[in-house]
Amino acid sequence: MYEVEIKVRADHDDVRGALEEREAGALNTGTQADTYYDAPMREFAETDEALRVRHERADSGDGRSSNRDAETTKLTYKGPLVDERSKTREEHETVVEDGAALEATLSALGFEPVATVEKRRERFALDGYTVTLDTVTDLGEFVEVETEAEEEEIDEAREGAVAVLESLGLDPATGIRTSYLELLLDDAS
Amino acid sequence: MYEVEIKVRADHDDVRGALEEREAGALNTGTQADTYYDAPMREFAETDEALRVRHERADSGDGRSSNRDAETTKLTYKGPLVDERSKTREEHETVVEDGAALEATLSALGFEPVATVEKRRERFALDGYTVTLDTVTDLGEFVEVETEAEEEEIDEAREGAVAVLESLGLDPATGIRTSYLELLLDDAS
Repeated sequence: MYEVEIKVRADHDDVRGALEEREAGALNTGTQADTYYDAPMREFAETDEALRVRHERADSGDGRSSNRDAETTKLTYKGPLVDERSKTREEHETVVEDGAALEATLSALGFEPVATVEKRRERFALDGYTVTLDTVTDLGEFVEVETEAEEEEIDEAREGAVAVLESLGLDPATGIRTSYLELLLDDAS
Repeated sequence: MYEVEIKVRADHDDVRGALEEREAGALNTGTQADTYYDAPMREFAETDEALRVRHERADSGDGRSSNRDAETTKLTYKGPLVDERSKTREEHETVVEDGAALEATLSALGFEPVATVEKRRERFALDGYTVTLDTVTDLGEFVEVETEAEEEEIDEAREGAVAVLESLGLDPATGIRTSYLELLLDDAS
């Protein structure tokens, strides 16, 4: 399976109206704080790898952030692209019970935090796609439309994503291929 | 708190009788498979560090090994000794949900498995100490007597451990300070 996604900068207030009109189904909402690490033995920026610790908190039913115990920590490794066209890469992810112990281990081994991407994420289901409204600290508001597809369906899936974006009043031509991490690091440099 | 422990080679059948006679309380039993990793950026054998992935399975009530779902995976980092006398070291440990994803991450980052120590472990409580009967694959049977102590109680705790060992018919003078990993690697070289 391949991930097909288009991401654009967009004011969420405008998009929310369109989502309501189109009767998009509300999925989970919550916050994510993603810390990316540099390795002691090679330059991840050059090797196109990433090591990430994600602290995730889902909203409880009443729309407020759930309590501290409900925070989930995940360790994720992303390898270099093995196929440029389809954006396929090796990826390994696991939930970790004690985030502080994981971070202390990474630090003791010489891995250093490069940057943390913090965002509030709301997700909706629409026409077989997931529409994500991301509010990223220091970067602003983004909308992502994505789905999974088999290799032979990629073109069709991309056309569908374009149609969903347009139905929300957004312009697919303004699509951004840069990750939030890269956008943050570009701003800082 | 400090760990005070004495470990000796001993035939378990003899010790079991003594434990029963002394009415030691049975604690948990199970199996552990500990894989130790080498780092890509420095020699852990030289820096006196260790990175370990432990797969642990507790026995169910009927004395048989519990099902596969009950396996727990832990990631542990042990730093160099900060105090030779008291054997104090930095240690970080967390439960990890997906052991295969963790191992794939370590492997992708260039960490390589050095050796795996597999053992069956039975634990008993006696006179405020934990008595552990370890059957280690390729190494044989060992008995460990241990407790935790404040710094000023270390000598007293050690004397108590000696007394417990002797009450089980074992000789504290045969104490082994070498870890199972080192014993395995010594045998292999």
